[in-house]
Amino acid sequence: MSLPPEFSLIGRHFRPLAGEGALDLADDAALLTPPAGQELVLAADAMVAGVHFLPDDPAQTIGRKLLRVNLSDLAAMGADPLGYLMTVALPRGTPDEWVAGFAAGLLEDQREFGLSVLGGDTVSTPGPLTLSLTILGTVPRGQALRREGARAGDDIWVSGRIGDGWLGLRAARGERPDPDGALARRYRLPEPRLALGRALRGLAHAAMDVSDGLLQDLSHLCRAGGVAAEVEAARVPVSDTTAPIAALVTGGDDYELLFAAAAQDRARIEAAAAAARTPVMRLGRFTQGEPHVTLRDAAGQDITPATLGWSHL
Amino acid sequence: MSLPPEFSLIGRHFRPLAGEGALDLADDAALLTPPAGQELVLAADAMVAGVHFLPDDPAQTIGRKLLRVNLSDLAAMGADPLGYLMTVALPRGTPDEWVAGFAAGLLEDQREFGLSVLGGDTVSTPGPLTLSLTILGTVPRGQALRREGARAGDDIWVSGRIGDGWLGLRAARGERPDPDGALARRYRLPEPRLALGRALRGLAHAAMDVSDGLLQDLSHLCRAGGVAAEVEAARVPVSDTTAPIAALVTGGDDYELLFAAAAQDRARIEAAAAAARTPVMRLGRFTQGEPHVTLRDAAGQDITPATLGWSHL
Repeated sequence: MSLPPEFSLIGRHFRPLAGEGALDLADDAALLTPPAGQELVLAADAMVAGVHFLPDDPAQTIGRKLLRVNLSDLAAMGADPLGYLMTVALPRGTPDEWVAGFAAGLLEDQREFGLSVLGGDTVSTPGPLTLSLTILGTVPRGQALRREGARAGDDIWVSGRIGDGWLGLRAARGERPDPDGALARRYRLPEPRLALGRALRGLAHAAMDVSDGLLQDLSHLCRAGGVAAEVEAARVPVSDTTAPIAALVTGGDDYELLFAAAAQDRARIEAAAAAARTPVMRLGRFTQGEPHVTLRDAAGQDITPATLGWSHL
Repeated sequence: MSLPPEFSLIGRHFRPLAGEGALDLADDAALLTPPAGQELVLAADAMVAGVHFLPDDPAQTIGRKLLRVNLSDLAAMGADPLGYLMTVALPRGTPDEWVAGFAAGLLEDQREFGLSVLGGDTVSTPGPLTLSLTILGTVPRGQALRREGARAGDDIWVSGRIGDGWLGLRAARGERPDPDGALARRYRLPEPRLALGRALRGLAHAAMDVSDGLLQDLSHLCRAGGVAAEVEAARVPVSDTTAPIAALVTGGDDYELLFAAAAQDRARIEAAAAAARTPVMRLGRFTQGEPHVTLRDAAGQDITPATLGWSHL
C-alpha cells in the first residue's frame, strides 16, 4: 500500500524537525497545551524566491532566513520562541538534495533558538519557491513590547547595524566587495535579537523590528505613539561609511530592534543590552508633533529621503 | 509621510477582518490569552492558483476555500475555531477589486464559523497567487480526536458524500453537467464538519478529514491504528452513480469526516450525526491484519484501484 511522494519527503526531511505537540506530523493538526501565565505571540511571514531571497541562495539558508525573520517579530514583542508551522510551495522537480539541505538548515536554527516545527504543508507550484511561516511565542502576561507607547522626550534606540541588509544583498549579488562574506551572510541569515527583546520588557516604552527600512519603521512608532522623531545621521551605526546613507536608512532586511525608552533610563538600557550581548546605539529623540520622521546631517540640515523604506507590492 | 501601497491595501481590505488579539494588524505580532482548560489545535495549509483552485475562480470563494480546508482539519480533531493567520503572495498588478472580493468572502466565512484573523503578511510574486493559512482552534484537554485508535471490528463511517470534490472540479471546468451549480459550489466551498467533529468527542475511536481521496485517507487510519479496512463500494455515498467509482473514492477535495467507532455505538453515532445535522454513512469495517484498504463490489470482488488518492508533488 504505497503513498504519494510527499509522504516520503515529509517523513525523511521534515519529521526530524517535529517537536512536542506535532504528533509526528502524522495527524490533521498539532496539539499544544499553552503554558500557564503566558500570553501567546503569533506572527506570519511569507517569502518568494527572487523577491525575498536570491533564487540561487544555498538551500541551507533559505528556510533559516524565514524562520529568523519571524523570530525577529517575536524579539520585537519581547517574546520567547515556542514553535512554528511552515508551508512550502516547491517548484516541480525540486531535487531531493535541495529539500534535505533546506531541512538541515532549519534543524540547525531550531537548536540555536530552541523551538521546533508543529505542522505544515508541502505542495507543488508552477511558480517560484514560496514559503510561509507562522511562529508562536510566549510572553509573561501583560509584558509584551508594543509599537505604541513612544513619548516625546524618549530616546530612539536601535540594535546592531543599519543598512547591512541593503549592503548584504549587493554583496550576495557580487555588486559590492565582501572579502570575508560577512555582509552576504547577514543578508541570508539575519540575527533575531531575542535576548535584547527579553531584556527590554518593562523598560522600553515601544519597540518593533526594522524590516522595511529604518526610517519607514520608525514612522510606525511615530504613528502608534502620536509623536515625531529626529534622527542624527551621524549616529546611525553602519558597516560602510562610503555607502549612501539614504540607501542604508531606507533599505530592508536589517531585522534589528528599534525602540523607545525614557532619557533617564539610558544607563539601564546600556546595561540590558550588555547583558544581552547586543550592541545598541542611541539615534536621536522622539519629539512632540505630528507623526513625522526627520533625518539630519551633522550641520542640522534636513536630509530625509523622499521614500522612507521598502514596498512589498 | 506616505506609506507603501501594501499599508493601504491591508488597512482597507484586511483590517476589517481582524479580531481580538490581532492588535489591528498594526503590531509585529498578535497577542492571545489561551483559554483555560483547553488545548490549542494548530494546522496549516497552502493553496496555489491552478493547482488547488482554478485561476478564474471568483475572488470571493478563493480565500474561503483555504479557510474551510483548514477548518476541516479542526473538525477532524473535534476542535472549535479560534482564529487564523494568512499570508498572501499576490501576482503583481492584481486589481484592488479582486482583493476587495477576496476579503469580503473571508469576512462572510469568519461570521459563519466564528473566528477572525490574527495576523499575516502580504507580498508580491512573479508567480501564481499563492495562499497559506495557519488555523488555531481549541479542544477540551485530552478530548481531541486523533488518527490513531481504530480497532479491528470498528465500523468505518464517513460524513456527506464522497467524490463531490472530483465531480465538482469537472463541473467547475464545464466538463460535467451541473444544472444548479451545486457541484461546482462544493468544489469551491467545501463544508467543514465542525458540528459533527465536536459531537464525536469521546465517541469516535479515530478520525480524520478526507482531503486526498477516501481510500488513501482511510489507509492513514489503518496505518495509525495497525488495522486493515474493508469498504463496500455500494455503501459509499455518491452524488452521481454514473461516475466511475474508482475516481470518486480516490479524488481529492471532499473534506468530509472519516472515522472509526465501535459497532455497538451505531445508534449513538447516528444520534450524534443527527444532532449535528450532518448525514453519515457506514462504509464497512476495520479488520485485523496488516494496514491495508480493500474496496469490494456487491459480489465481494476486490475492486481496489491501484492508486488510492491524490499526490501533492
